[in-house]
Amino acid sequence: MSVLALAGGVGGAKLAEGLAAVLPPGALTVAVNVGDDFEHLGVRISPDIDTVTYTLSGLNNQEQGWGLAGETWQFMDALERLGGETWFRLGDRDMATHIERSRRLKAGETLSEITLGFAQQLGIKQPIVPVSDDPVRTVVTTDQGVLAFQDYFVRLRCAPIVERLEFAGAAEARISPGFATALAAPDLEAIIICPSNPFLSIQPILSIGGVREALEARRVPMIAVSPIIGGQAVKGPAAKIMDELGMTVSSLGVASFYGALLDGLMIDTVDAALKDEIAVTAVAVTDTMMRNANDRRRLAREALAFAERLRS
Amino acid sequence: MSVLALAGGVGGAKLAEGLAAVLPPGALTVAVNVGDDFEHLGVRISPDIDTVTYTLSGLNNQEQGWGLAGETWQFMDALERLGGETWFRLGDRDMATHIERSRRLKAGETLSEITLGFAQQLGIKQPIVPVSDDPVRTVVTTDQGVLAFQDYFVRLRCAPIVERLEFAGAAEARISPGFATALAAPDLEAIIICPSNPFLSIQPILSIGGVREALEARRVPMIAVSPIIGGQAVKGPAAKIMDELGMTVSSLGVASFYGALLDGLMIDTVDAALKDEIAVTAVAVTDTMMRNANDRRRLAREALAFAERLRS
Repeated sequence: MSVLALAGGVGGAKLAEGLAAVLPPGALTVAVNVGDDFEHLGVRISPDIDTVTYTLSGLNNQEQGWGLAGETWQFMDALERLGGETWFRLGDRDMATHIERSRRLKAGETLSEITLGFAQQLGIKQPIVPVSDDPVRTVVTTDQGVLAFQDYFVRLRCAPIVERLEFAGAAEARISPGFATALAAPDLEAIIICPSNPFLSIQPILSIGGVREALEARRVPMIAVSPIIGGQAVKGPAAKIMDELGMTVSSLGVASFYGALLDGLMIDTVDAALKDEIAVTAVAVTDTMMRNANDRRRLAREALAFAERLRS
Repeated sequence: MSVLALAGGVGGAKLAEGLAAVLPPGALTVAVNVGDDFEHLGVRISPDIDTVTYTLSGLNNQEQGWGLAGETWQFMDALERLGGETWFRLGDRDMATHIERSRRLKAGETLSEITLGFAQQLGIKQPIVPVSDDPVRTVVTTDQGVLAFQDYFVRLRCAPIVERLEFAGAAEARISPGFATALAAPDLEAIIICPSNPFLSIQPILSIGGVREALEARRVPMIAVSPIIGGQAVKGPAAKIMDELGMTVSSLGVASFYGALLDGLMIDTVDAALKDEIAVTAVAVTDTMMRNANDRRRLAREALAFAERLRS
């Protein structure tokens, strides 16, 4: 049996970690958003891929969710001393990932090959695949103008009001070989959309040419775990963006965002009252807050069980 | 008055530091070898420029001569974990120099502009100029084949036997604006060749189109400080290479290498007996070993006084 997870940032990585822990080695493919990727200081940075990779390898900073445990910042301090740009903080260990990725890209390797290579090198037993090897770049139209994603997200700390999101290159981008293989796997049993930001992490994936069609043509249940709990995002700007885009800031908004694409949506127990208001898809209610490894494994098992129920 | 110093690695940086300390701000131009420069891990590394810059800013590692004081190695450790190339050790702080240099080169700045910018940012009062903004690359023909310089110098630790040195691009390379300005300065009083490796640090400079001619046409004394003391190099492979190239491993060999290009050569007191054997140039005998800042300033003053004596 195999399972495909779609993931973006920290919340997505947490459920991916739980799924990786409860599934047999090789049974899980984590397909990761590349819309946040960018070039900075001459290196290629893939924040979502790195968050998933660091999390699945156990090297991640558990408190902040992203980055590496025990990270140091000598590089940034020295760069500041030279008058360089320091708004995007790159740790000393993290920098090795970007330098080595950039070197291999220049040498002609694909992002898929490099991502898989890093995962293997770090002892990860489940394939991590970028959703595309072609450039897809989230562009945020705001009240302060059109911004590259990291300008909006890191430099301006999500302060501008979002008016529109676009995913430059998505329509022309091709599904990566690993993502395509996972989608077409004869033994595929479930597709799980992790509790990532629907607009910033999942929408760019859905915008890649052929992805939405492939998902709609699936023969297995696809469920999502809502990233909104009690009207708030566990982390990041999902709730703020939903509000700015005129959506209901709750799992209702998440349900209507995914619409008929889903077979089921998992929402948190604090939002149990919303269950009957969601008509578009089946709903499971559980504790979706992932505080520790136990939570992540429990939620992963419940998500797999929910998909299993929907399959039969 | 102005003084021009030609420098390469650690020994050159030490005398440059002494000269910078005893001369008025802006009076010294340090023209630095670029033959050791190379591209590695996607960044441009200029080892000799960095050694001079770190030394003149006081940020250098005083024990080993190159690199930064208090350097850390998290980047290299993480790169090793990813399976990257680790034979050339790049410190976390040092990496900022290479990343920022590479970024500015890609943005169209010249190596001269970047080098000067770094020096100003680090509070250095004397201009540091690469001898050329064009690529000059030392190539070492050895018993183990033709090697790029850093392959020979760092990866193979100078073990191969040197048969020939070439400086790819040198003939076509143009003298950098700052080096040309210093050479043509109306108030120039002396040119000092620092105790750098004559073959690896100074020869690439002399090989750049027009440099040797400009030096021969000078109207001021040019002296060198011998890097060989008692038949040994203070640091690095100078003695080994002299031997492999069939030269006398002493200040006699240094004197015959520079030949009539020099007006004077400073040799160490332990080599005082060689003085009368050197016919090609004037000789000054002094303590040339630079153990500390006092030594560096004293040797700088003596070199300036020696040039002054030769001028009158």
